[in-house]
This record gives sequence, C-alpha cells and structure tokens, in this order.
Amino acid sequence: MPTSAGIRYGMVGGGKGAFIGGVHRQAIAMDGLAELTAGCFSASYQNTLETGASLGMAPDRLYKTYRELIRAEARRPDGIDFLVIVTPNHLHYPIAKLALEHGIHVVCDKPLVTSSEEGRALATLAKRKKLLFGVTYTYTGYPMVRHMREMVANGDLGDIRFVAAEYPQGWLATPLERTGQKQAAWRADSKKAGLSNCVGDIGSHVENMVAYVTGLEIRALLARLDRFVAGRALDDNASILVEYQGGAKGMYWASQIAVGEDNGLRVRIYGTKGSLEWAQEDPNYCQVARLGGPTVRLSRGRDTLYPAAQRMSRIPAGHPEGYYEAFANIYSSFVAALGKRKSGRRLTAEDREFPGVDAGIRGVKFIEKCVASSKKGAAWVKF
Amino acid sequence: MPTSAGIRYGMVGGGKGAFIGGVHRQAIAMDGLAELTAGCFSASYQNTLETGASLGMAPDRLYKTYRELIRAEARRPDGIDFLVIVTPNHLHYPIAKLALEHGIHVVCDKPLVTSSEEGRALATLAKRKKLLFGVTYTYTGYPMVRHMREMVANGDLGDIRFVAAEYPQGWLATPLERTGQKQAAWRADSKKAGLSNCVGDIGSHVENMVAYVTGLEIRALLARLDRFVAGRALDDNASILVEYQGGAKGMYWASQIAVGEDNGLRVRIYGTKGSLEWAQEDPNYCQVARLGGPTVRLSRGRDTLYPAAQRMSRIPAGHPEGYYEAFANIYSSFVAALGKRKSGRRLTAEDREFPGVDAGIRGVKFIEKCVASSKKGAAWVKF
Amino acid sequence: MPTSAGIRYGMVGGGKGAFIGGVHRQAIAMDGLAELTAGCFSASYQNTLETGASLGMAPDRLYKTYRELIRAEARRPDGIDFLVIVTPNHLHYPIAKLALEHGIHVVCDKPLVTSSEEGRALATLAKRKKLLFGVTYTYTGYPMVRHMREMVANGDLGDIRFVAAEYPQGWLATPLERTGQKQAAWRADSKKAGLSNCVGDIGSHVENMVAYVTGLEIRALLARLDRFVAGRALDDNASILVEYQGGAKGMYWASQIAVGEDNGLRVRIYGTKGSLEWAQEDPNYCQVARLGGPTVRLSRGRDTLYPAAQRMSRIPAGHPEGYYEAFANIYSSFVAALGKRKSGRRLTAEDREFPGVDAGIRGVKFIEKCVASSKKGAAWVKF
Amino acid sequence: MPTSAGIRYGMVGGGKGAFIGGVHRQAIAMDGLAELTAGCFSASYQNTLETGASLGMAPDRLYKTYRELIRAEARRPDGIDFLVIVTPNHLHYPIAKLALEHGIHVVCDKPLVTSSEEGRALATLAKRKKLLFGVTYTYTGYPMVRHMREMVANGDLGDIRFVAAEYPQGWLATPLERTGQKQAAWRADSKKAGLSNCVGDIGSHVENMVAYVTGLEIRALLARLDRFVAGRALDDNASILVEYQGGAKGMYWASQIAVGEDNGLRVRIYGTKGSLEWAQEDPNYCQVARLGGPTVRLSRGRDTLYPAAQRMSRIPAGHPEGYYEAFANIYSSFVAALGKRKSGRRLTAEDREFPGVDAGIRGVKFIEKCVASSKKGAAWVKF
Repeated sequence: MPTSAGIRYGMVGGGKGAFIGGVHRQAIAMDGLAELTAGCFSASYQNTLETGASLGMAPDRLYKTYRELIRAEARRPDGIDFLVIVTPNHLHYPIAKLALEHGIHVVCDKPLVTSSEEGRALATLAKRKKLLFGVTYTYTGYPMVRHMREMVANGDLGDIRFVAAEYPQGWLATPLERTGQKQAAWRADSKKAGLSNCVGDIGSHVENMVAYVTGLEIRALLARLDRFVAGRALDDNASILVEYQGGAKGMYWASQIAVGEDNGLRVRIYGTKGSLEWAQEDPNYCQVARLGGPTVRLSRGRDTLYPAAQRMSRIPAGHPEGYYEAFANIYSSFVAALGKRKSGRRLTAEDREFPGVDAGIRGVKFIEKCVASSKKGAAWVKF
Repeated sequence: MPTSAGIRYGMVGGGKGAFIGGVHRQAIAMDGLAELTAGCFSASYQNTLETGASLGMAPDRLYKTYRELIRAEARRPDGIDFLVIVTPNHLHYPIAKLALEHGIHVVCDKPLVTSSEEGRALATLAKRKKLLFGVTYTYTGYPMVRHMREMVANGDLGDIRFVAAEYPQGWLATPLERTGQKQAAWRADSKKAGLSNCVGDIGSHVENMVAYVTGLEIRALLARLDRFVAGRALDDNASILVEYQGGAKGMYWASQIAVGEDNGLRVRIYGTKGSLEWAQEDPNYCQVARLGGPTVRLSRGRDTLYPAAQRMSRIPAGHPEGYYEAFANIYSSFVAALGKRKSGRRLTAEDREFPGVDAGIRGVKFIEKCVASSKKGAAWVKF
Repeated sequence: MPTSAGIRYGMVGGGKGAFIGGVHRQAIAMDGLAELTAGCFSASYQNTLETGASLGMAPDRLYKTYRELIRAEARRPDGIDFLVIVTPNHLHYPIAKLALEHGIHVVCDKPLVTSSEEGRALATLAKRKKLLFGVTYTYTGYPMVRHMREMVANGDLGDIRFVAAEYPQGWLATPLERTGQKQAAWRADSKKAGLSNCVGDIGSHVENMVAYVTGLEIRALLARLDRFVAGRALDDNASILVEYQGGAKGMYWASQIAVGEDNGLRVRIYGTKGSLEWAQEDPNYCQVARLGGPTVRLSRGRDTLYPAAQRMSRIPAGHPEGYYEAFANIYSSFVAALGKRKSGRRLTAEDREFPGVDAGIRGVKFIEKCVASSKKGAAWVKF
Repeated sequence: MPTSAGIRYGMVGGGKGAFIGGVHRQAIAMDGLAELTAGCFSASYQNTLETGASLGMAPDRLYKTYRELIRAEARRPDGIDFLVIVTPNHLHYPIAKLALEHGIHVVCDKPLVTSSEEGRALATLAKRKKLLFGVTYTYTGYPMVRHMREMVANGDLGDIRFVAAEYPQGWLATPLERTGQKQAAWRADSKKAGLSNCVGDIGSHVENMVAYVTGLEIRALLARLDRFVAGRALDDNASILVEYQGGAKGMYWASQIAVGEDNGLRVRIYGTKGSLEWAQEDPNYCQVARLGGPTVRLSRGRDTLYPAAQRMSRIPAGHPEGYYEAFANIYSSFVAALGKRKSGRRLTAEDREFPGVDAGIRGVKFIEKCVASSKKGAAWVKF
C-alpha cells in the first residue's frame, strides 16, 4: 500500500445512484493512492452535497458545476492534482478540455469522447500542457492481461495469426431503458452515449484488450451492428471482422442481448507457436497451449509471470483478486507516474503502462469505423 | 441393442490407414444394426483383402473397385441393403450415383459432394428410386443436440436472435500435408477435397449443427477464407457472418490452425426468452439460461429431456457417452427407417431424424457460397 | 477392430429390465471381440427367450438355468469359451464356480463375491484349471487411468503421500428400493447384495481405482458406514480412512445419498514431486501438477501418453470416448489374453492388464473390513 | 462506501515482510471504514517506523511494544477505537487481553489463541467490559457464503445429512520452513503457531466455514494428523471424521503438502432436499442441486440471493469480487456494529454477522480435539 504522498484528486460524476464512480473511489482508497478532496458528483447539487457528506468531504470543495470545480481548484494552493471524469460519455470532452486548460491532469472513463476529432484535440492539449491523461480501460489492470501482453511481445506465441474476442452481456435483452433504469437510459440515448451503445460501451473493451495484449494494428474492418430490441435507437449487438497490419485476422463479437451472459469478455489469441485464452470472469488464470504440447493453466501468484505482471499481483495464488484490484492497478500506475512527474523526473515508456489518451482516441475511431461500416451495409472500411 | 434383422451393408473406403471407416463399422456393430458383408476398402486391392480378412469377411465379397462391388451386390439375392461411402470427398458422387442406380440405399460421409449440382442429381435419383440417403453429420447424433433442437422447436428460447458457433482445430497449424500424413494430404488437395478444406471439413459441421438445432435458413452470408500456412492450396481458417430468414443473425468461425484446439465445435444460441450452449467435447451436458433466471446445467440421463432426445440416451447420467454412440445413433435412426421401408410401411417425418440428402446439399451449397464470397473479397452473397 | 476369431461367449443375467448386461454385450460387439452364443438372461425363462430372440440368438442356446447353460455348453464342441456373469452379487459365486469346474473361462461383474473365502476358492479353482478370470472394474479401462498408472509406476509423482478418492451418487437419497425400482431393490437387500450396498457397489470402485493406479497396499483402515434413509437395511454412505504399507495415507468417501451427484468417481493423488486428478465423468482428461510448475491438462489422443494408455485410445483428441469404450477395453484385453491362451502361448504380466480374480478378492476383503470396522464403532482394523 | 465517521484503529503486527496485515489495512481503507492512527507493526521498532512512514502515519503514534501502544492510546482522548491483531498466534492472547482491559475493542486474526482456556478468558473479559471482539475468518465475508448460510437456515436443503469439506494447499510440500521463508518458519514452530500447523492454520477454516454455513454442532470427532515432511515439528496434513448433534456426519481434509493446490477451500453440503457446493477459489458462484431437479449455478449479483448475502454484494454479476472484498465485508459488519455501540444503540443478532469470540473459541477447541484424537492413534473423542 503506497502512501498518497499528498496527492489530491477531484471527481465529476459518480453521485448517488451512479455505479462506477464509487468503484473508482474505492480502488484509489484501497491503495491509499490519493485523497478525494473535490467533487461535483451530479447535475443535482443536492446529490453532490449528500454524496460529499457521506464521504466526509469539506462542503466548500463540493461544487455546483464542473466549471466551478475546475476553476476553483486550479486557483487553490492545495487544489487537486488530477480530475476523475465518470459522467455519461458526451460530457467527457468539455470537462477534460477545461481541466487540461487549467493545468489539471485527467483520468477519464471510456469511451474517451464521442468523436475522434475531440480525442485528438485532447491529446494535443495534454501534450502541450505536459499533463498526464489516463483512460480507465479497467481490464488492462488484471495481472494476467499484463502477462499475456508480455508473452506476445516476447514472441512466446510466435507470429499471431488469428484473434477471436468477444464481450457478451445479457442485461439489455429487454427494453430496460424504458423502465427508468438510469444506466440503461443514458446508454441507449445517442445524445449521451454517442454514435453507438454496444460497440461504444463494450465493443470498445474488446478492441482495447486485443490491441493492449497483441499490439496488432487494425488495417480494415467490417461491422454489422444490430438493434434486436424493437424501438431501440442504438445498437445492442455487433459482429465485426478485422484485418490487422501484417496479415493477421480477427473476429469480434459484442452483445447486450445475450441472455445468460454477464461480463463475458474473452480473448483467444492464436499464433504460429502457441495460443492463449483469458476470460474476464475468471481473471486470475489463463490457458496457454504450445504447439505440440499440452494445455497449461497459468495461475496468478503461483506460476512464473513476467515482471510487469508480477508487479500487479498482490496476494498469493488461490486468493482471488478481482475487478477492484484491476481498477486499483490502473490508478496505481497513473499515480506513480504523476508522482514522478511532480517530482520533476522524466517518465519512461514503462511508466506509461496505464492506458492513455492515444488508446482512448483509437477506441473512439474504432467506434466510428464500425458505425460507418454498418451504415454501408456491413462493408469493408479502411482504418 | 436392436437386432440386425438380416440387414446387410457394404462399405467403400475405410481400409487400413484410414480413420473414419472403422468408426462407422464399430458404431453399427455396437448396436447390432446390420452386418458388413461387402467391401472395397481401398484403391489397393491388397489393402481391401487384408482389411476384409481382419474383419472375418468372405473373400468373394471383397472387391477391386466400387463398380464391381455395386454391380455384383445388386445381382446377388443376398446382396447388401445399403452402402456406406467413406472415401475422400471427390469420390462420393460417382459411387453414390452408381449405388442408387442399382437400387442400393446409401449412407455417405460429409461433405456430401463437391458441387450442389451433383447433390441435386443424387437427391432426384434417390427420390425417383425411392431409396434412403443418409449423410453422417455425426454430431447430430448426440442426445443433447436432439434435446436442444426440441427446445428451440418448442419455443423454449423464444425467438432466436443470434447464433455464435465455431469449430476450431489446431492440427493443421503446420504444413502437415507435406509430411505424408494421409488425412492431411487429401484434405489439402483441391482435387480430392473439393473447393475448400476448412469450410468443407468442419465449417460444414457448424452450418449443419446450427440448421439442425435452430431450423434457421440462411438468407445471405459473407465469408473470409484464410490460408495461414504458406503454400497451402486450400483454406485453413474461415470467418463467416450469416443472416437468416426472419432477421436473426449469426457468426461462425472454423479453423484448422488454432493451436491447442482439438474438435472444439461449440454452439451458442440466444433467443428472446433464453439461451443455450453446447460443446462437442463435453457432449453429455448443455447450459441453459432463461431470462431473469439462473444458469442451469442439463445432464443427459439425469434431467428431463424431450422424448426425441431421451430415445437416444443409452445409459444413466454420469457415465459418459461419446463419439461412437453419436455415430451409432445416426445409424440406428437410418436402419430403423430402412427396416420400415423394407417391410413396406410408410415413413413419417419422425423416421427421418437422421440427416438426409437435403442437409447434404445445403452443406455443399454453403461451401460454395463461402468460397464465392471470399473470392469477391469477403463480400455479401445471397444464399 | 480385431476379429472375434471364432471366440464365443455366454451370459448369465442381463435380460430385459436389467441395465449392465446390455452394456457388456455392446462393448464386446463394437470391437467384434466375441460372439454371444448362449444365454440365461433371467430367472424368468420367458425373459430369456425374449431377450435372446431380440438378439437374434438360436433358441436352443437359451437356457432355463445357469446350470443347464454351463453343463450343456461344456458338452458342445462349439460351446462357449467364456461366460459373462452379470447377475446380482449373491449369484456370482455359484455360477462362476460351476463354470470354472466345467472348464469355462469367466468374466464376472464386481463385487466379485460376498465373502473373501468364496473369492479365494474361485482363485484356487481358476489357477488349478488354468482358466482366465476377469472382473469388470470398468473404470480401469479408461486410457487416462492406464496413463496415470504408468505415471505413478515410473515415479513421475515421486513417492505417494496422500490419496483423496471419492464416489458420490445421489440416486438413493430417497427410499427408491421401496418403489419397485429393480436395481435399487436388490442392491438394498442384504441377501442379494451382500454385506454392504454403498461400499459394495461403489466404495469398491474407489478401492480398486486407487490400488490400480498407485499400487499401494492397504495396511489398516477405519470405516464409518451410515444409513441415512430410515428403514434401509444396508449402508448408503461411507467415510473411510486408510493407511498404506510404506506410510502413505488415504481418505475415501462413497455415497448414494449425495443429491446432485451421478457417478462422481474422482481420484486425487499427491506425491513428493507432483500430483494428479481424474474424474470419471470427464474421463478423457487428467490434471497433472508438478512441484514448482503449472497445472497441465493432459488430453487423451493429443498429449504424449505412455504406450499402455496409448494402446487403449481409439480416436484422436476432442472426440470423446466414454463408458462403452472403457468397457470394451477391458474385454479387449481379456479376449486378447484368451486368444493367446487358446493358441497355447504363454501369458505375460502385460497380458493381464484387465482386472483379475485377485483384484476381485481384494475388493471383497475391503468390503468385509469396512463393515467390520464400522460395526466396532468406526475403529481401526488391520487389513 | 460508508464514511469512517471518525472511527480510528491501531494495529499490532503487519510490518514490512509480513503478508496479512496489509490486506487488513487495504480492506478497511477501500470502504473508508476507519482510519489507521496507531501501530506497532513489528518486534523491530525500525520496521514499525518504516511501515508507519510509508503509510503516512504520525511518528508519535508508532510504538515500540504493543503494551506501550495500548496504554498510550487508552489515555489519549483521540485514541483508537479498536485494535487489529495480526501477529503470530502465540501473541494473540496477551495483546487481546491487554487491549480489552484498557477498554479497546478487538479484531484478532485466527486461530484466536493457543488454548481454549485463553479463549474463554477473553470472552469473559470482553463480555464484562462490553467490548466487541471480531475474529477474521475471512471466508465468511464472501456473499455466496452468506447466501448458503441462509439457504440452510431456511430449509432449502432439507435436513443436512453429510458434509464434505476440504482445504488443500501445496506450499509446504517441501521443508520451506528451513529456507528462511518467514511465514513458513513461524507456522512450523510450535512455540509460535500453537499445537498444530495444518489444522490450526487451515483446518480451522474448514471447521468454521461448515459451522457458519450449516449451524451444525460437532458432537465427536476423529483426527489423523500427519507430518509428511521429515523433521517437521507440527502437522502438515489432516484427515478428520466428524459427527454432529442430530445425526449428520462430516469428513474434513486439510493439507499443506498437496502439490498443485493453492487455497482450495471447498465445501459440499448434502441435505434431504438438495445440495450445494462452493469453492473459495471461484467465490462468486455456488452450485445448487435440488432433489429431482437439474444443477443450477448461482451467480453473485445476477441471481436472487437472500438479503443477508445481497447486502455484501458490491458490483453486478460478471465483475469478480475477491479476497479483499471478503475481508472488507467482515470489517464492514464489525465497524457498523461498533458505530451502533458507540452511539449507544443496542446490538441485535443481525449486527453480529461477523465471526466473534465464540467462533474463535470453538475453533481453538477444534484444534485441541484434533490433536488429542490424533495422539490417541486417531481415536474418537467427544467434543
């Protein structure tokens, strides 16, 4: 458990009734990474006040709008070091922009923004201002994911030939968005969610996971987006064929209407020398097969993992680590880099193992390309 | 164990060094369904003689060519009732045609033939001659597959929305066909295997399994066929998007280069009311989820299966049935229909639960369409 | 598929309404090992006649009593070579004894007899008459079981320290024997089943499996036999502690009241250098862990098995073999030995890989010792 | 995330190089339950100072001995509310005693103490002083464990007949304690670990889990404790037969020499109407079978759990919760009760869902009885 070393953060979004904001806060708290000192948790100031009070925060650091928060905190000598953005997607851009303009580092939920132009603008701004920008592709925080990335990078699988990746969920098999369920409502609303619901929310996790683990770059794709629930404005299922630079191929599936599935993110990667398989719902293990050899079940904590994975593993094998710890690992990397930056040291590539603004932009572009392909009747588009 | 009731069969193919012929024979033998009385097991007469001798067969029923076999047996008063064809694909058509012309019922391995024209010719001939024609899509013989078919037919899953089906194998991850391995050699040879290797051999199982279980009819498809092993003449990997009549969608994957996979046929079917999942390598179980309910693991022999499935189940739960029994179930249905036909009784739909010539033709057409789509750069083609 | 080479067998038990007799017949038939030419399938002659007719047998080889069968067949020049005994337990002894006395080889279901004296008498008789005696501990026919035996014998696990083995079933969780269910009725009847139901029927499989795989010899044991269903005459659950020669220890559990379990035979063996785990319901795989190494899933057909296991494997990995094939493997070994014996060749140790009369006697002794221990209040008894 | 509401705690043990102390701290931190304000983390003051500094603690609250800590904190107006004891076992008693005497609530790791007399003394003292006493049987914090407890209590399984529970580990398969590994060293040292290593460390988890879930009370037991690694002073493997009040029976196995096992705590409970199975390494699910029905896989977050379980579940199904969250749930219950107590409200039975001193005493007694039985040659002893 590192100490927070006086690092302070603020949060926009994540008030009562929201889901993911609390997970961000707990993940940061469990490792003592930073102190939450400012908040604008909701469009409702009442909600913000209640949420802040329940967290023991000072009332004068609870703000009516994100603009107020950013401007006030930027002026304070004890103002926040970074801002966590956990609002619906359409607000990511203006909030992140304003924070960067005021010299505040940013961690933003994914998908980063609703157009790749916006993403590039943020990247340019962050670079110019020399500010860190993290994007919480949570699943990259699992130690086994880090290990798989190293395996591929070190050639353990040979040349990658084929990737089969998927993220089925079942929670939108019925028109839940019409029942008043808050999450479902904004995600199914193109004004708030952006161009896509299914690809935007979970297809983007598939894209990011494959890119993170394999380093493969998409050259072209073909996507078929479905709306299986009548009257739904955005997609709830997507079948995607992918071609990578260098000749590898991939097949992605994301769904929100797959009855019986929860968060079934699963990646299978086949190379010339071996293959691996990992499922988010059983994250402490991965299956590895080598050409001509038996299938091995690698276990976090027990088996010899690459150092980059070992660093993220907290407790011995057989005591499961889960979603909170994956989240905390992302923040742990981000805050370590922040501390280094604050102390004037130069960041190396290794310090940037948290997903950054570039991964965020690529994710948004992926969504755009999928939507474009689907609109053309599921035709091939260059990436 | 029903008695063979005097039913006799012959076999073309399946000599020493071949694989599947022996499985056919043992499956027929275990249920005492019919007696093997005639054989032309190989292009090598020596092989035929040795194979026949090892099976205790009469030497005068061992033939040099399939033509001899068919003509001689057709003339005998104690000639064979049906002929099993287990040769490489390109020989299916001439052999089946000659057998039908001589009034002999046929069971043929899949893929049925190498063009749908040939398939239609056989269907016409069989119909005109009033002969039974079975195609050994083995996996449809598993009791749980029969149960799933009944579940869908009875609306247990509601309307089907999406099908995710796959058949990964890893045995051709290296250029095995150049090492003298017999199976690999003919399957990679377009003169013997037909238009396709991967789709022909295993993609066709995916197509048939989905059609058998769901009854869905393909309206259009898009296929990308890959040749990942350099110098290979035919495909070794295929990604296929499918649209069915009525609006359901599907995604198929077949591969022979998926290191670590054996015979990973797996079907997942998602409807408005529930879903199911079945894997060929664990065939005695299937997973069923109902909207709003927990996931249930149905067990052959233990749980209440539909009668059509129950009929195929041999022993109580917990004693695994496998591939041989699935094969035997196909033959059991075929021979029962044959017995009925021989005794002059009329066959009902229920008597035709073995896959027939129509399934065979559809399978060939599927291969043709996949190849056509792929040649156009993985474009959509009508089915 | 070997040929039956003119080997003939008869069967006592296994008429309509019985379960296991048919499995024996099909297992023999699938490999064409021997021809069923004589039968006394039931105490009801009518049943015997109907069963025989359904199997296409000659009416003059269907007998009213086992005595008739044995005496008549022993006199015939074309009489049976071996007799399969699949009756309730109490009849095994007199039938086997009479068969041996008449020079007929025997295959008998387990538990062999109802007292170890009877067992020893049969062993003596078989030895004197130079007759083969097989006992169908079916599960030893699985290829992975053969492989595990070789692993232990070759020291792959180091010295064995601890064995955890179990066989839970749930079918007698209610007083099924009072509903007229035939199997349940005789098994719960001490006159027919012998001293024990649960240990006799399935605990004996645990004992045999551990002995077969590890070669460990029991030095002492302590058994607690329960009767959880009120009014039941024999045990339906058993907890057993075992000490082996040489210092290893074991723990066995057998149950017929474990709701939700089918044929859950599972063996885990821990040595100084590694461990292995195998479950009968998933018989094509076993898990192997080596000290300091990851857990490996060995797959029949795919991974490198010892020759004694490889010989029993029929089809490539991923096409499951099951219970019938395990049975057939036992018979295949028995019939091979029989053929060798008939042709006057000497049998080697390797020819005796089917479980024989000694394993049968040890199994009966195990039952006796468990019952004795339990009667003393679950106290330690020497073996 | 509740607020710490000004609750403060101290910790004895858990310095650099220790394992479990940090987990306690992070579990408390993630929910913001209490603030760590005092520590004596090690017998080495240097270690305490470094650990405290890394946690951002005030130097004047870092103590050389636990006595100093307790006395000083008891005098401070802003002294700690409760003390967490995470030292080797032999120190639990004197520390807990002193804390209670000074009016400080206690949370102590398990096994509670090294004799049941000590345990009873602590219980008496806590009761007299009206202080809360929690024992961190971590695994009871998993939501599915809470659900299973409710299932049994509500009769969903009918009357419990048999319990099969186990906790295999493999980390002591070699004499690790002689290599300088700190954990292994003190656990293998009877002066620090108490009467037993294997039963004390993990057998006690089996006992507690079964008692917690079923409410069954042990009437008698028989234990065989082994020392498989030569030269080891304490047990490293234990086989235990149990009889409960009311006639149910159980079988426990704990091992530290089971190569390939990590923290394999697994409980299977069989009743007249159903059964359930849960494994600590896959804690978000449990298997439930009902008499005559199929096996159901219940999923935390997705399926309908009893309210006492639902309260402990943090995030939706499919995002795994793990060991940290189980720990946090224990503390969450403890701190909630403490808050209620501090505010003068009366505690109800429901407030005591964290394992308390009585569970701790019962655990110690279990260890004593197992050791006593084993010393008599694995004979039955009354509980």
